[in-house]
Amino acid sequence: MIANMKAVMDNVRNYMPLVHNITNYVTVNDCANIIIACGGSPIMADEIEEVEEITSICNALNINMGTLNSRTVPAMIMAGKKANELGHPVIFDPVGVGASTYRKNTAEKIIREVKISIIRGNFSEIKALRDGGKTKGVDANDVDVIDSENIDEIVKFCKAFSKETGAVIIVTGVIDIVADENKAFAIKNGHYMMSKISGTGCMLSALLGAFAGANPDNLLEASLVAVALMGLCGELAYEKLEANEGNLAYKNKIFDEMFHMNGEKLETGAKYEIK
Amino acid sequence: MIANMKAVMDNVRNYMPLVHNITNYVTVNDCANIIIACGGSPIMADEIEEVEEITSICNALNINMGTLNSRTVPAMIMAGKKANELGHPVIFDPVGVGASTYRKNTAEKIIREVKISIIRGNFSEIKALRDGGKTKGVDANDVDVIDSENIDEIVKFCKAFSKETGAVIIVTGVIDIVADENKAFAIKNGHYMMSKISGTGCMLSALLGAFAGANPDNLLEASLVAVALMGLCGELAYEKLEANEGNLAYKNKIFDEMFHMNGEKLETGAKYEIK
Amino acid sequence: MIANMKAVMDNVRNYMPLVHNITNYVTVNDCANIIIACGGSPIMADEIEEVEEITSICNALNINMGTLNSRTVPAMIMAGKKANELGHPVIFDPVGVGASTYRKNTAEKIIREVKISIIRGNFSEIKALRDGGKTKGVDANDVDVIDSENIDEIVKFCKAFSKETGAVIIVTGVIDIVADENKAFAIKNGHYMMSKISGTGCMLSALLGAFAGANPDNLLEASLVAVALMGLCGELAYEKLEANEGNLAYKNKIFDEMFHMNGEKLETGAKYEIK
Repeated sequence: MIANMKAVMDNVRNYMPLVHNITNYVTVNDCANIIIACGGSPIMADEIEEVEEITSICNALNINMGTLNSRTVPAMIMAGKKANELGHPVIFDPVGVGASTYRKNTAEKIIREVKISIIRGNFSEIKALRDGGKTKGVDANDVDVIDSENIDEIVKFCKAFSKETGAVIIVTGVIDIVADENKAFAIKNGHYMMSKISGTGCMLSALLGAFAGANPDNLLEASLVAVALMGLCGELAYEKLEANEGNLAYKNKIFDEMFHMNGEKLETGAKYEIK
Repeated sequence: MIANMKAVMDNVRNYMPLVHNITNYVTVNDCANIIIACGGSPIMADEIEEVEEITSICNALNINMGTLNSRTVPAMIMAGKKANELGHPVIFDPVGVGASTYRKNTAEKIIREVKISIIRGNFSEIKALRDGGKTKGVDANDVDVIDSENIDEIVKFCKAFSKETGAVIIVTGVIDIVADENKAFAIKNGHYMMSKISGTGCMLSALLGAFAGANPDNLLEASLVAVALMGLCGELAYEKLEANEGNLAYKNKIFDEMFHMNGEKLETGAKYEIK
Repeated sequence: MIANMKAVMDNVRNYMPLVHNITNYVTVNDCANIIIACGGSPIMADEIEEVEEITSICNALNINMGTLNSRTVPAMIMAGKKANELGHPVIFDPVGVGASTYRKNTAEKIIREVKISIIRGNFSEIKALRDGGKTKGVDANDVDVIDSENIDEIVKFCKAFSKETGAVIIVTGVIDIVADENKAFAIKNGHYMMSKISGTGCMLSALLGAFAGANPDNLLEASLVAVALMGLCGELAYEKLEANEGNLAYKNKIFDEMFHMNGEKLETGAKYEIK
């Protein structure tokens, strides 16, 4: 065992961190319920008049760009600055960042003006965010699959991006990578079926809000645990999925697993290595 | 039996009230489906250009402050005034009112400009609304639990607030209170698991829209019935929850119970007393 | 067999069309997940700064008026014009068009400025859109049921409206009609229980986005297949519904059926005739 997964998870259950989410209207309900399922408490608020106050009573801020618009982007930045001032962890999910110039410019502005603690996306998004380039909507491009061939290169990329931004970098895919500038983990939990629900990425980012909020001094490990946890729930949910069940049934079962997860089960099921 | 619960519920099933909701984007889908499950019909519309016309074709208006913003607040007030003019019941759910100055000011403005028929919140919210004070996000503060020790005091508080506002006051918690200035009910239906889903409060407020819309001349009793009904569905859903199921599965089962509820079952299961 | 349903469906599964949705916040999550369940990929984006670019990387555009507002209406039109320029199919769902003057004016403006490929609504909505008149919220008026008595008249109405607009006209109800100016289909799939969930109409429109995106040269047949498919999923889901289950359980089962549907099952279960 490398990380003390149980302790990190127990902190969420015991501390019940309040997570401020400025997120999209597509998967927002799942984000709220996954935060509750893991032991946290969610609040959604995106009006510029109140985001500073809301984020002040919270333990972490989760900024998700899924359905960004001209009204909410300034609120994201204002909330982010306030969270920075208070030392709260800020999670950033640059959904579909390569899909439009507006998303690219907004993401760059957010990263420039707010000190982000954790950035999470698929590899197409993380590449577009750092180097530019297009993404096919909100999913990873086919060429951007992480496998045993290219993993060392991607780990190097993540460490370098972490050095540039000061953020923990999380790239999710068939293999997930969690990296700061010095250290990285490759996580092999998860299931293909997770790509058949809208919002598993958003849900992980919301979860990261709870884990970072309850473990603010240990963001790399908190990130590793949240990523392995989400993947493990996806695996276990698939085991319970019956042959005739579809993607919404599968989503419900992920919540079953999250709700009943505990540190022991997580430590037994987590599959990761240092990279 | 104090109230004619069956008759109140049958009115909803028979009349199929149309409920205009100006609500948050987190739990809106659950609000729509719970209104359908109980026998009503929902419409969501928050654009100021149309809210007067929309509310005119409806039987009740449900204003929920969950993700309020500068675009929708004026629409809430305009719709509320129109509903007042037409004599339609107006339900107000001051979500997280103590969490920001903006929420507090907005809630006060709504109450000042619109005659509210029913106000529903947890005790932290209702206290913040009347007296000011902070709330921990959208959940009740730990000190604001209603129990046998403080219930008489809280009932007195609710009656006084009802006298000041002219609204039925509903405080939900371990025990729920429904009060007008002269009479109050304490309702002991419900289950702890309801606090583990995002939106049971919002769903109850939407339900109140349907019950008030179908029973406009009897808002205290309509409120009592809706509160007991929601709690009873939560209890019965928990009985059907399997050991490995989590919060989304539980939510689905609340809809099962609501959909198949009838007046007889409700009268048998409702647990309330006059206070 | 009139249409090659299997080939139309296989195109969706094989091509995995990307569907741009500018839609309401009530049923948006279901729209995203139904597109995934049928084999497509959804993206939701409604900010005017980016909709042209977003729609350019997609295969179809789905405009749904459910919670229209002054910020998103111009984005709908701009996206629609861009989709027209690129030859992408545009689906239009005039939710509740007869419920307010604002909806009526907006719908007329959209039809005037954007060349719509497919219009889908219940009969009250389609009548209000063409001839004016009120709708009772978002549901069809009781007098607007399609049955064997009036079907020929409604088919004639749809063909005429198709001739005027150049769009495939889809009227959904107990019997569904799919018509262009020359040819029409009456589809008898579906189940009453579908009216007890919020969003089956929206979900069908999203599905039409995927089917039109993968079959752009054959929109009438793509529409027929999507309508029969949605209805068949509703029927099969009902067969699996247990006696104590409600509307959210039923919704989950529709996704089960959609996820596991294939061309053979669809051709066996589809019930339609030329009109």
